[in-house]
Amino acid sequence: LAAYTVGVAAGDVVFSIVDPGVGTDRDAVILLADGRWFVGPDNGLLAMVARRARDPQAWSIGWRPPNLSQTFHGRDLFAPVVAGLANRGREALTEFDARPVPTLDRSSWAEEHRAIVYIDHYGNAITGWRAAAVSRSLRLAAGGHSFAHATTFAAADFPFWYENSNGLVELALNRRNAQKELQLALGMAVTVADPARSQ
Amino acid sequence: LAAYTVGVAAGDVVFSIVDPGVGTDRDAVILLADGRWFVGPDNGLLAMVARRARDPQAWSIGWRPPNLSQTFHGRDLFAPVVAGLANRGREALTEFDARPVPTLDRSSWAEEHRAIVYIDHYGNAITGWRAAAVSRSLRLAAGGHSFAHATTFAAADFPFWYENSNGLVELALNRRNAQKELQLALGMAVTVADPARSQ
Amino acid sequence: LAAYTVGVAAGDVVFSIVDPGVGTDRDAVILLADGRWFVGPDNGLLAMVARRARDPQAWSIGWRPPNLSQTFHGRDLFAPVVAGLANRGREALTEFDARPVPTLDRSSWAEEHRAIVYIDHYGNAITGWRAAAVSRSLRLAAGGHSFAHATTFAAADFPFWYENSNGLVELALNRRNAQKELQLALGMAVTVADPARSQ
Repeated sequence: LAAYTVGVAAGDVVFSIVDPGVGTDRDAVILLADGRWFVGPDNGLLAMVARRARDPQAWSIGWRPPNLSQTFHGRDLFAPVVAGLANRGREALTEFDARPVPTLDRSSWAEEHRAIVYIDHYGNAITGWRAAAVSRSLRLAAGGHSFAHATTFAAADFPFWYENSNGLVELALNRRNAQKELQLALGMAVTVADPARSQ
Repeated sequence: LAAYTVGVAAGDVVFSIVDPGVGTDRDAVILLADGRWFVGPDNGLLAMVARRARDPQAWSIGWRPPNLSQTFHGRDLFAPVVAGLANRGREALTEFDARPVPTLDRSSWAEEHRAIVYIDHYGNAITGWRAAAVSRSLRLAAGGHSFAHATTFAAADFPFWYENSNGLVELALNRRNAQKELQLALGMAVTVADPARSQ
Repeated sequence: LAAYTVGVAAGDVVFSIVDPGVGTDRDAVILLADGRWFVGPDNGLLAMVARRARDPQAWSIGWRPPNLSQTFHGRDLFAPVVAGLANRGREALTEFDARPVPTLDRSSWAEEHRAIVYIDHYGNAITGWRAAAVSRSLRLAAGGHSFAHATTFAAADFPFWYENSNGLVELALNRRNAQKELQLALGMAVTVADPARSQ
């Protein structure tokens, strides 16, 4: 989420839901991070956004709608709050009975998530590792395969890693399906293959 | 469709298409149900909406566009009618040569459709059975498996049924794929597993 | 693309991306075809639109954004140009440093692409062959199967071809999956099965 909202402007509202604990007592929260509003469950989804912001502020949402389903808080609880923030900004905090809470950051989490977190329709494997932190001279490894750096798909006829359009390390094969050909899978660790080469 | 439009406000227009008979002589119709407009083919799609409305009214659409494809009436015929109703309300009836027809209800259909009608991306099986009509103490059965009631996903470590966010009975496994693990399939009947328990 | 934009009005802007060469030196272009604007890579995507237009004009986009990813020109380069054309029309040509180029047509390409170019969710096989150029009395062949003409899905209980809602020849089975049952595949040639019958 942090990577995907780099270009979001101050005053904008980001609404994201990954919420397996919907209906349990996990908090519903609002985060103000570098002028941008985020709304969602407090289950770690907003943690890296909070960590990378300057002076983030967070609130627990006290308001509950008259009809609250047990399994679709995105529609019933979060969406009205998002609409309120989008329309009236900070004034909505009072309307929705928002109460300040400490940071939503998860202090035990690593700065980079060096693993495959998503595989797209084409079989490209996206990691949670920011490419700005990786020297282009490094080879990376995943699933027993080695990936050299390439700038564009068309430039590579080998398994390669590149900085994707959201600034994250992505593993791919040009015009082929890396997931299938290299047996990549969600959650698989990504490491530096050959540190000596980076000297 | 009836379950999914519970929250739609009077004056709104609902446009839905499931139309295997497109291009045949099935009617193209408009339904006014509790102040809400529905537009679509008269093939049963609007039947339960009509049944559950107070004093529904229905019209056959006489108008035909200058260019009518044989296979995409959603674009060529229905969409202009929907736009007309959305912009000008009841006045559009005359423009599109709407002629009153009897109810669109299908009188022979059961009140509840006790079967799996849709399986979502996560393998959860949605039925056409309204959960308000089912006691929470009942166990349901489908595909040889038994499902106890649960309120939220996180609360259940067994096959369970719950009232989904549209008020329908849904069969699921928490964080697992019920379709695959329990061999659920579209059209499969859902029954009460153990009526004695409900005493 | 040419088939899908028949109904687009003069002044509208069409933004389409199929861009395996993103990040290489292929041109980024603007096409004005019968009053409609098209924006995209110059890799053939706009070729048939240019060919079928009267007096098409084309420009190479000289402008580059401050932050240009190597792999997502749709977002970084093309989208701002599309927004400029949509908001300010021809004035945007200067803003984005557009320089006239010869036609984007590919002269070596056939007028009709007699092959399966897309298979939809239902297993219907769409070709690049315009149906207006095919006599309804002709049987077509693909993958060893023969397809007679039908006007609607409901009318046919045999493998059939029909003019789809975009004017292209499409191969289908009524309420069944033609791709699976007839082993149709992307790229497969479509021919006239039995020319004698058309006499």
